[in-house]
Amino acid sequence: MSEKKDYAKLALAAHHEWKGKIEIKPRASVSDSEALSLAYTPGVAEPCLQIQKDNDLSFELTRRWNLCLVVTDGSAVLGLGNIGPEAAMPVMEGKCALFKAFGDVDAFPLCIRTNDTDEIVRTIENIAGSFGGINLEDIAAPRCFEVEERLTESLDIPVFHDDQHGTAIVTYAGVVNALKIVGKKLEDTTVVMNGAGAAGLAISHLLLDAGLKNLLLVDSRGICYEGRPEGMNKYKEAVAKRGNPNKRSGSLADAVKDADIFIGVSAPHVLTKEMVETMAQDSIIMACANPTPEIEPEDAYAGGAKIVATGRSDHPNQINNVNAFPGLFRGVFDCRASKINSEMKLAAAEAIAEMVSEEDLAKGIITPYAFDHQVAKNVAKAVEAAARKTGVARK
Amino acid sequence: MSEKKDYAKLALAAHHEWKGKIEIKPRASVSDSEALSLAYTPGVAEPCLQIQKDNDLSFELTRRWNLCLVVTDGSAVLGLGNIGPEAAMPVMEGKCALFKAFGDVDAFPLCIRTNDTDEIVRTIENIAGSFGGINLEDIAAPRCFEVEERLTESLDIPVFHDDQHGTAIVTYAGVVNALKIVGKKLEDTTVVMNGAGAAGLAISHLLLDAGLKNLLLVDSRGICYEGRPEGMNKYKEAVAKRGNPNKRSGSLADAVKDADIFIGVSAPHVLTKEMVETMAQDSIIMACANPTPEIEPEDAYAGGAKIVATGRSDHPNQINNVNAFPGLFRGVFDCRASKINSEMKLAAAEAIAEMVSEEDLAKGIITPYAFDHQVAKNVAKAVEAAARKTGVARK
Repeated sequence: MSEKKDYAKLALAAHHEWKGKIEIKPRASVSDSEALSLAYTPGVAEPCLQIQKDNDLSFELTRRWNLCLVVTDGSAVLGLGNIGPEAAMPVMEGKCALFKAFGDVDAFPLCIRTNDTDEIVRTIENIAGSFGGINLEDIAAPRCFEVEERLTESLDIPVFHDDQHGTAIVTYAGVVNALKIVGKKLEDTTVVMNGAGAAGLAISHLLLDAGLKNLLLVDSRGICYEGRPEGMNKYKEAVAKRGNPNKRSGSLADAVKDADIFIGVSAPHVLTKEMVETMAQDSIIMACANPTPEIEPEDAYAGGAKIVATGRSDHPNQINNVNAFPGLFRGVFDCRASKINSEMKLAAAEAIAEMVSEEDLAKGIITPYAFDHQVAKNVAKAVEAAARKTGVARK
Repeated sequence: MSEKKDYAKLALAAHHEWKGKIEIKPRASVSDSEALSLAYTPGVAEPCLQIQKDNDLSFELTRRWNLCLVVTDGSAVLGLGNIGPEAAMPVMEGKCALFKAFGDVDAFPLCIRTNDTDEIVRTIENIAGSFGGINLEDIAAPRCFEVEERLTESLDIPVFHDDQHGTAIVTYAGVVNALKIVGKKLEDTTVVMNGAGAAGLAISHLLLDAGLKNLLLVDSRGICYEGRPEGMNKYKEAVAKRGNPNKRSGSLADAVKDADIFIGVSAPHVLTKEMVETMAQDSIIMACANPTPEIEPEDAYAGGAKIVATGRSDHPNQINNVNAFPGLFRGVFDCRASKINSEMKLAAAEAIAEMVSEEDLAKGIITPYAFDHQVAKNVAKAVEAAARKTGVARK
């Protein structure tokens, strides 16, 4: 606990010193009359007129081609809940710093002062022409689903909710490597997905897209199945229909029995050693609740788990979104992809997985070093290739 | 004409090369796990919580204190009219580059995809918590007045429409120096303000705030006076009431007769040498229509003018907003001013005027060199002092 307290104190002092974690810099000289005549009046009229004639030139003559909006309503920030737009900004600025440092993506943070879905959608639609892509961040479920769906429908630039899809990509990357180690195939496994919020639902769909047949989505009421009388919604129904066609029901303990993989984006210590003992041989545990995982790694290993991953940086095998979003948007921007489809997310995950060497796999390591800049580069290449293959690249 | 064509071609080529005139850079390191623990999770939770408790800390712990939104609806861009949000972006990016280069202000450009006043106001209100100030730009009149009024009312950060107030400041700065040269006092002069759009109205109010008694606002129908049956609006009425209490009427030619100062933000070549001949001795002509002034300087001098200024960079005495907005916002941000009042605008103008040496005044020069970085520094100091004096500074 004392170590955590120190982080808070150190981070606060650092934020006072930084006075903002991003800044905006000119790329064009405006230092004399001649320079200004090109970058500003009178010369600037010409690129304006060119874009008026051909809107696509906004991706050539302005920063739009490389500019991602990082936007939140401040309603689900970290584990802090609905803390409002101004208080969400330190997280958004940090995210933007990561975008540039790892993906060379210009990202700008905006915090919207409303939790009304219509208003969030309309605000983003009104300003979308200034950006090449939209990264939704820390918007509470189920509002985040509707915001993402409606913007994907109305905008001609990619919309990506990182809490859903970024998390799904890095989780699936970990699963890919864990399965290599235990020598199982995804389509032969049963996955228990504990947590039916934004992340859990997105992870479920990506795993099912990747070929998984049996997935049990579990929420606080137990296993989700089509027609369950309480606590369902259309999003859970969709996952249950795909992953649990036999309508299995029961508790989390029932679900994990004989399962191969447990993935948690839920609550501290909900998985016990005893439950892990009932899982299939060489079980894989990805306990990603933050900061306290669903089960402590030592308890998971004691229960017979072969591979354990968490969301924490002070444990090995950290499932970390920073492996995905910078490279993903780099790849998207490099080919001006119109959307981010499932094939692109799977390609990103596989590229991340491939960054772990045979040697590291042999040691039980399933995630790459988060600060290896080659990760984003490889992810970008894989995403761009998938975009071209699926026909969503526009240049 | 061939020279202008070259500027267009050169500027287009330069924009293709720049691929955006601004970019976003991290100020905090995220290069290893320890750094990330401070700039991002888990450390970042602490500044978030601090801001949640005390919203004012958003001006300490994030970039807000130095961040200006440069926002347009693309409806009155340069002389190009309503060219839309994407086509307006080259101008907005140029403006943002100038903000940083001259005022060390971080400015971010947004182009809003609507010309509906309610929608513009609501969009800006929704995102205002991410900024320390709002610079409205190139929004058509009279919509710009309502947008500015409503945002000034609803937001607790300063709102500034540069086409109005920036232009007014640099114009008044020129008037101050021109009057020094001809040895007249503002309160004893008569000013003809030709052009009753955003700039003309704002210049009128600032001159009247500075002590001018006689100002004739002229639009395409002639002199504006209270109760004129045609072509009036509440904004013109307000200026007419202040500057033309005797309800003088007539044409532009009638207005300029015996006037000391002509200011134009109107149309090419509407002022003739013959009209200038009817003005008072040592007349001052500020012909700021762009790119073609209300009268060519040589004709104005031939008509007896003592001082001539234009908006063009290829003539001496360029009236250039770049002398005002970077230093103005620097001063506003340095003391966290809650608004930009008339005293601050007058202080900015006087600081600009003082940058011209006695020696230059003796040569008829009334505007400082636009690329002298000392201008913005002096403007900032003067604006901050005026903010403190008028009680709008918040730190």
